[in-house]
Amino acid sequence: MNLKQYIEIMVPEIEKELQRQVARLDEPHTKLFHEMVTYHMGWTGEGAGQEATGKRIRPLMVLLATASCGADWKSALPAAAAVELVHNFSLVHDDVQDNSDKRRGRPTVWTQWGVPMAINVGDGIFVMANQAIMDLTKAHPALTVVQAATILHNICLDLTRGQFMDMSYEERTDLKMDDYWPMIGGKTSALLSACTHIGALLGNADEKSQENYRQFGYHLGLAFQVQDDILGIWGDEAVTGKSAASDLVEGKNSLPVLYGLEKNGAFAKRWKQGPIKANEVKEVAAQLENEGARQYAIEMSHKETEKALAYLKESNSQGEAGEALLELAKKLLKREQ
Amino acid sequence: MNLKQYIEIMVPEIEKELQRQVARLDEPHTKLFHEMVTYHMGWTGEGAGQEATGKRIRPLMVLLATASCGADWKSALPAAAAVELVHNFSLVHDDVQDNSDKRRGRPTVWTQWGVPMAINVGDGIFVMANQAIMDLTKAHPALTVVQAATILHNICLDLTRGQFMDMSYEERTDLKMDDYWPMIGGKTSALLSACTHIGALLGNADEKSQENYRQFGYHLGLAFQVQDDILGIWGDEAVTGKSAASDLVEGKNSLPVLYGLEKNGAFAKRWKQGPIKANEVKEVAAQLENEGARQYAIEMSHKETEKALAYLKESNSQGEAGEALLELAKKLLKREQ
Repeated sequence: MNLKQYIEIMVPEIEKELQRQVARLDEPHTKLFHEMVTYHMGWTGEGAGQEATGKRIRPLMVLLATASCGADWKSALPAAAAVELVHNFSLVHDDVQDNSDKRRGRPTVWTQWGVPMAINVGDGIFVMANQAIMDLTKAHPALTVVQAATILHNICLDLTRGQFMDMSYEERTDLKMDDYWPMIGGKTSALLSACTHIGALLGNADEKSQENYRQFGYHLGLAFQVQDDILGIWGDEAVTGKSAASDLVEGKNSLPVLYGLEKNGAFAKRWKQGPIKANEVKEVAAQLENEGARQYAIEMSHKETEKALAYLKESNSQGEAGEALLELAKKLLKREQ
Repeated sequence: MNLKQYIEIMVPEIEKELQRQVARLDEPHTKLFHEMVTYHMGWTGEGAGQEATGKRIRPLMVLLATASCGADWKSALPAAAAVELVHNFSLVHDDVQDNSDKRRGRPTVWTQWGVPMAINVGDGIFVMANQAIMDLTKAHPALTVVQAATILHNICLDLTRGQFMDMSYEERTDLKMDDYWPMIGGKTSALLSACTHIGALLGNADEKSQENYRQFGYHLGLAFQVQDDILGIWGDEAVTGKSAASDLVEGKNSLPVLYGLEKNGAFAKRWKQGPIKANEVKEVAAQLENEGARQYAIEMSHKETEKALAYLKESNSQGEAGEALLELAKKLLKREQ
């Protein structure tokens, strides 16, 4: 089987497991609560469907990691659901925190039902992630379940740490590139590292191999985020689905911007003067590129990609599932093609 | 030892365990995040101290339940910390959802650091609750830890269910008393039931006894909430710390109000006309009492108290710790004295 075939088999199973977890809310007094969750998950409401669910990359990483250790990936389905639920809980709260009114092309939960309900929807999804991971007991010894849950909880704290840093960086113009890595390490890499780590744990990999899987996911996350930063300034709107350079208008503290701030040249001077307007974006982006920020970010992304792939190679991943995991990683990192 | 002596020994240990859990955030990049949490917990910032921490009733229930099964309560400390952290996570989010600017006499987290940060503080505290429960592995077999975590996660979903109902009841005037019990079952009783349930589990009680402990906590929660509802309309401001009858002004769907709505008399007519103003409160409260709501609520509170105490008796709780648990329950239910 190749990646495409794995996806065709695995994604329907992931959806089924997710729906089973979320069905806990499908009770007489909480019908609307359940509906809010299924709306966010992309299953119900206007615009429901594949575009709205997202690609389920994270649960696929869990299942492929387990399979690439030579174990039955179906036994890891509750963990796959758990990481996807953690991802979605964080999106619901992010959208409130960032005041974002659209998510995957649809109105966000808070614009539909208000901020208080959206906070509760995020909380509920998070709880169901915790319940999902406990469901591993059906196929794994209690000690393994405790280990998987501990990994998940630890990276969840990293998520909130990253979110804290991201929010506290707003309005600051004294940031260094050293402030960047712990932030995206929490916001993006932590959850991906949990996917491959837990996948390997459930595949009965030994500790050294688990650590290689974990590092693979972690560096994949860093590479992915840096690439996202590049696309956010110099990307093609048709591919990224958001207007290129919107990161400049939004004042996002991405790697290229922090590079430019450290250079302390013309870009830094302009950046410190206040919000970039839409009509200046082209010029400011060109300025930043001239100062070397794009090239630097590309190099960093390549460096992290190399690290990720080296750890995957070390991990002793096997067979077609191992190939598919590599393919998924490469696919994730070449979104502009 | 009596309850007072248990409290003197246990509360400092609870604080120590809580501080240990929360120290996970005490890192260079997240100092302020850690500070936000310690502020909310009542340890730091203006007004820090015993008044600000709350009474730690829930962790005391856990530890006394464990001790009353004849086991070492110290082995249950991570669970005690977990339930207190769950309680506090829900308070931080509640304050945002209810737009409350004061908590235990101090400005709430969101008024100090804004809504986006407060959402993240709540999320972080919740994650640390999950991490705390996993720390039970130090003294308990993995299977017991999985069972404790499962109890905790299940009641956390009940919390979000109760919160959903509470929020969705706002502005509704067609509510029945049947809508009341599932709401407070989630908002108030679920967590108390988890305290006594987990406490008994960690005390190695058998399943039947665990169920009695669980029911004790659950009905104690119902009795407590109904009493809180009574105080919210006819209470003495000096005791409750909030202005009596403020529940009427806030339009809270408490048991006496739902009783009055079902009666469909003069109170219901006035209630449906819109918000009660401060200068009408005395008259409306008297009207509601005339229609029998106060008497009914007192009866229900007594009934639930009796149930709770009967389950405690059945639970086979032992020794001084068993006596202290009974004392704590009675103390909780007689706040007006």
